[in-house]
Amino acid sequence: MKQRDIFTKTRKEAPSDEVSNSAKLLIRAGFINKEMAGVYDMLPLGLRVLKNIENIIRVEMNAVGGQEIQMTALQDPEPWKKSERWEDEHVDNWFKTNLKNGTELGLAFTHEEALTRLMTNHINSYKDLPVYAYQFQNKFRNELRAKSGIMRGREFLMKDLYSFSSDKDEHDEFYDKMKQAYMNIFEKVGIGERTYLTFASGGSFSKYSHEFQTICDSGEDKIFYSEEKDIAINDEVMNAEVMGDLAIERDSLKELKSVEVGNIFSLGAKYSEALDLIVDDKNGKRSPVFMGSYGIGVGRLMGVVAETFADEKGLVWPESIAPFRYHIVNLLSDSSTSDALYEDIKKTGADVLYDNRDLQAGAKLKESDLIGIPYQIIVGKSFTESAKVEFINRKTGDSENLTIKELMAKI
Amino acid sequence: MKQRDIFTKTRKEAPSDEVSNSAKLLIRAGFINKEMAGVYDMLPLGLRVLKNIENIIRVEMNAVGGQEIQMTALQDPEPWKKSERWEDEHVDNWFKTNLKNGTELGLAFTHEEALTRLMTNHINSYKDLPVYAYQFQNKFRNELRAKSGIMRGREFLMKDLYSFSSDKDEHDEFYDKMKQAYMNIFEKVGIGERTYLTFASGGSFSKYSHEFQTICDSGEDKIFYSEEKDIAINDEVMNAEVMGDLAIERDSLKELKSVEVGNIFSLGAKYSEALDLIVDDKNGKRSPVFMGSYGIGVGRLMGVVAETFADEKGLVWPESIAPFRYHIVNLLSDSSTSDALYEDIKKTGADVLYDNRDLQAGAKLKESDLIGIPYQIIVGKSFTESAKVEFINRKTGDSENLTIKELMAKI
Repeated sequence: MKQRDIFTKTRKEAPSDEVSNSAKLLIRAGFINKEMAGVYDMLPLGLRVLKNIENIIRVEMNAVGGQEIQMTALQDPEPWKKSERWEDEHVDNWFKTNLKNGTELGLAFTHEEALTRLMTNHINSYKDLPVYAYQFQNKFRNELRAKSGIMRGREFLMKDLYSFSSDKDEHDEFYDKMKQAYMNIFEKVGIGERTYLTFASGGSFSKYSHEFQTICDSGEDKIFYSEEKDIAINDEVMNAEVMGDLAIERDSLKELKSVEVGNIFSLGAKYSEALDLIVDDKNGKRSPVFMGSYGIGVGRLMGVVAETFADEKGLVWPESIAPFRYHIVNLLSDSSTSDALYEDIKKTGADVLYDNRDLQAGAKLKESDLIGIPYQIIVGKSFTESAKVEFINRKTGDSENLTIKELMAKI
Repeated sequence: MKQRDIFTKTRKEAPSDEVSNSAKLLIRAGFINKEMAGVYDMLPLGLRVLKNIENIIRVEMNAVGGQEIQMTALQDPEPWKKSERWEDEHVDNWFKTNLKNGTELGLAFTHEEALTRLMTNHINSYKDLPVYAYQFQNKFRNELRAKSGIMRGREFLMKDLYSFSSDKDEHDEFYDKMKQAYMNIFEKVGIGERTYLTFASGGSFSKYSHEFQTICDSGEDKIFYSEEKDIAINDEVMNAEVMGDLAIERDSLKELKSVEVGNIFSLGAKYSEALDLIVDDKNGKRSPVFMGSYGIGVGRLMGVVAETFADEKGLVWPESIAPFRYHIVNLLSDSSTSDALYEDIKKTGADVLYDNRDLQAGAKLKESDLIGIPYQIIVGKSFTESAKVEFINRKTGDSENLTIKELMAKI
């Protein structure tokens, strides 16, 4: 794509009320737009990143047998009243609204209730189980403060999967698969090495839930990491009992700031009992379906990656989710070499952004650094002098001078 | 995909409060779920159809130079106050909600205001124009009544494109391109022949807007169609003046019931003036950007197609948007032939649904008809007798007996 065909302009300053470093960079580079605190639009470059992350997650969810659906934001209060999550005294981050006739509705912050009710039409016996349904859907959460950019939105894209199993054994098997699927996702988006499976508080049906926490200086969470066991403990459950359960000594733990990029939760019969998802089990008895829920904030993940890899020059995207793989920056008054190169790279099927705008060389290079595409291809002075283009790795800064032939061999 | 791996079950009856014929069928066949009037979830089969339609639209929007973005549902009142569309006395279908601090927010029913404000950061002069931005985004409309299933939702997926041009000439050229792009879309989803470009009421900047109306007995609109000119007039503007403008005689017009599947609108400077999207023009003067908006309800389009082609047996999907292209229904106790056929068809890359469930033949065939996949491949009695499968065109009912070899040659 030609850069002149993308309407966004980079800017020197982020809005003065923006405090998150990743949000500042994403706004300055034209990836997102701030509507208000915690509410951000995805612009062309940002949407490309978001879709790349979404596709990575989709592949993993399909691989574990997930079936994609899409539920609504507008919520009928009825099932939420049954599970006792409707009243503001029980859930403090609802956005609520009203139909013209005065009926109060909610905007979904999650979907256990609606989906459990839906499943009563489709699951009648253990023979219909297990079922794994997931969606990419915008959640609404009425956060009192929203100061972390797209890492904590009031409206944000979430992947949420819900599992419906016959019993605890069937559930546990799937739960373990999801742990692996989640680690695959974080690995693929580039933060695998700094993301730890973390023990967090459970619920009525399990002592612990599991979070995936990514080390991040601006993170809002605190975890204790055991290098030996390669697991972590969330500050909120950090006590003698959990260390005993995990056979971990306090001295071996490293305290770290982090951000939660995913969580998985055994729900047991909490919602199936409340919403009457009771089915015939293998012994012909009526039993509540055993449920689990599995969330990843897609926008948050994008924010965490931005925050993690950014340097003083701007954003640095991992190849797997970058908006483009190559950024050709033409600095010559005669753009014929760059034009031909652009066409040649496009022909290989690679995603390439081409800056053939008539601007100062310095401004174009600075902008390329700010946008953070993994490989920069600079057609400038060295081409005039020695018929070579500069091939720069944005992350490492490594630079090579290559002939067009050498470059194309790399692509 | 194996049918047993889709969690939805078909049902004999739709919910008693559902009046729309297409919604009844879509619910019975397991494509959608009704949360409440005008609010429907997309289940696995339904989401496949929706995504197919989305992709057809995306190709056409990219072809005219559209850049994809994704804006938010939550709306800051400020730009809407400037355009005088915030107050309920001006716009009667807002859903509104509140932040914890009491600030009132809206849920977007459209995005002219937010996008125009956004563009003030990116468009500074005529050199930055034209810009075409579009999105697939869930709109919220607080309809007093919502009785048309997914053809009139309170929450629904919409494709909305907004054009920003230097002047009326530049705008008009694009507006004509969009007319063609829209007809391409309706052609591709299978309703081209019964969808007419329709003159409807304009606004302050143009006498008429254009709708795309599809003939439909359960439609809420009335149009007057001129076969000779292949255009129609919406009842709301049907008078001597418009007939004069279009040089059409009343006698030549056919009155038809229809449903609006798209509309395109010249907005002129209405929003750019209200929201200060004023730029340097070619003559160095400050001028408001000339805008247009172009909408298609994606869910509505799915509903209209369902409504249009359904027969007494159930849904009938056009190939271009069907959830699958082939439906193998095994009726033999030995499924080895069907199993092999399923694998062979999958290998060709074609989308195939395979019913290898242990159910009565009659029930399986009825269900296949209800779901409405274009080509049914029945492996039953005729295979035992003559090693042939039945290949049925769901739409026409035409049936052929084919050997496996003859069948594979068709696929």
